[in-house]
Amino acid sequence: MKRPEFELIDWIRSQVRDREPVLLGIGDDAACLRPAVDRELLVAIDMLMEGVHFTFPDATPELAGRKALAVNLSDIAAMAGEPTAVFVSVALPNDRGVEFARRVHAGLIELADEFGIVVAGGDTNSWNGPLVISVTVTGQQIGPRPILRSGAMPGDWLFVTGKLGGSLGSKHHLTFTPRLAEARALVNMVELHAMMDISDGLAADLHHVLNASRVGALLEAEEIPLTEWARAARDGHSPLRHGLSDGEDFELLFAVSPDQGKQLVSQWTETTPITKIGEINRSEGCKIRYADGRIEPLDPIGWTHSIGEGIASD
Amino acid sequence: MKRPEFELIDWIRSQVRDREPVLLGIGDDAACLRPAVDRELLVAIDMLMEGVHFTFPDATPELAGRKALAVNLSDIAAMAGEPTAVFVSVALPNDRGVEFARRVHAGLIELADEFGIVVAGGDTNSWNGPLVISVTVTGQQIGPRPILRSGAMPGDWLFVTGKLGGSLGSKHHLTFTPRLAEARALVNMVELHAMMDISDGLAADLHHVLNASRVGALLEAEEIPLTEWARAARDGHSPLRHGLSDGEDFELLFAVSPDQGKQLVSQWTETTPITKIGEINRSEGCKIRYADGRIEPLDPIGWTHSIGEGIASD
Repeated sequence: MKRPEFELIDWIRSQVRDREPVLLGIGDDAACLRPAVDRELLVAIDMLMEGVHFTFPDATPELAGRKALAVNLSDIAAMAGEPTAVFVSVALPNDRGVEFARRVHAGLIELADEFGIVVAGGDTNSWNGPLVISVTVTGQQIGPRPILRSGAMPGDWLFVTGKLGGSLGSKHHLTFTPRLAEARALVNMVELHAMMDISDGLAADLHHVLNASRVGALLEAEEIPLTEWARAARDGHSPLRHGLSDGEDFELLFAVSPDQGKQLVSQWTETTPITKIGEINRSEGCKIRYADGRIEPLDPIGWTHSIGEGIASD
Repeated sequence: MKRPEFELIDWIRSQVRDREPVLLGIGDDAACLRPAVDRELLVAIDMLMEGVHFTFPDATPELAGRKALAVNLSDIAAMAGEPTAVFVSVALPNDRGVEFARRVHAGLIELADEFGIVVAGGDTNSWNGPLVISVTVTGQQIGPRPILRSGAMPGDWLFVTGKLGGSLGSKHHLTFTPRLAEARALVNMVELHAMMDISDGLAADLHHVLNASRVGALLEAEEIPLTEWARAARDGHSPLRHGLSDGEDFELLFAVSPDQGKQLVSQWTETTPITKIGEINRSEGCKIRYADGRIEPLDPIGWTHSIGEGIASD
């Protein structure tokens, strides 16, 4: 008789096939990969817990597995990178059985396949607790170097991909497409100065870029692209507040020179929109200009992208 | 006011310093490493859950963090590798506070320092659940290639490092030293055919080597090195049974040619003993010869290295 997790591991192995750069995937003490010459190795890691980052039945097991990978792919995109392999450790609830476990992994593997990435290793455990998934993704930069948070320069134009706000309410956080294609298009078109993905909310994450780059910024409230959900929200918070502080947008926030910014605006052909939302300056901290011309300080009001009782950070 | 996990992340950053091959560690969307030229990239991942892989107060927070790294270092050693960087994701119990979280990381960082490895990234979360730690370790082979489970050949001598049995009872599983130095000494002395670390118990893990290598083996019961704890156990199981089936020894099991085996026995100078426990043959499966000459089949009787209610696998 097989132990249930061996059965699961056999099933996972049947679903994935090793290919370059994975020389040896699941089944030994460690995976073996061939790292690219002259590229840096990128490593992203994120843990998702049931009740904090997803809940059932709001999420399906497939969507929980999918999200665990997607948030890591978003991190690799934010470095202007491409993913190379996926490693998954799970704590599976005993009472939900092997079929549940299979569905979690199926959701993850489907997204990996979509981006041509191999699931190259993992660790499968079960317990009398909620579902926990920790994913590690390796990658490498697409362009000459990875793009950090720390390279924004005074005068730079600030852009975001897509639209912001309401990710938890609209379930966008379970279904979003990590911005890998957009990161690649950006690298191919312009010289990026700084980039990160928006997971704590625009205001909070912009502060991370400003602190790392030792610069300030002025945002244009009217320019911040808001989702339909944020525009329609009737929960006491303004659409702008949702756009600034809701977590888990998983859009890219990036800075380029004004010349490169103009070029981007005129030449961008990807389906996902990009929007200039402000400019980097030499001041300290972040300000925001409202439609009426008022300029006010903008605190890092993003607080938590927890949807349950816990707190979380990336 | 800082969110408690930001405070924790600041503290972790103060405890570690980036150095080669880590170009950029904690603080951006992903870490950046410089992979070695002409070496394969090894990646090991393991998740440890409170109540399954450790319990409090049997373990201290420091020992829980230490173990989460140690089991991964054992995996890297088993590939005849050396570790290069550590990535840690945690689910921290809300009710235990920041000091508890610091102690978990302190135990892990202390072991990382002992082996000169950088903690290069992580993900810090908290929830109303038990402690979960998932660690990913990158590494590279020491010798010309990583050593797999699949290279054992008929005629090979089978060795183990150290002594076996009773790891959970004796708390060895919380305090063991991963066999990185021993793996290095082996690579420098002989050509290893196959290697793995013993985490499910000798009998179970030997079957993994035999299945992967498509060979059989004959063990010598009298030769299996047993810990004091296994020899003294009065729990209805024989000392041999403990040596064969207890999990979490985290010793190395390896196969070399008879010539190389003789050389090892005569030249081995490390403090940790190595012991020849049997030989690889062309049969199917595994047999064991007892002191009285009886030869019997040996099932993969290692069952679980869970110490709580769950099951676990590596």
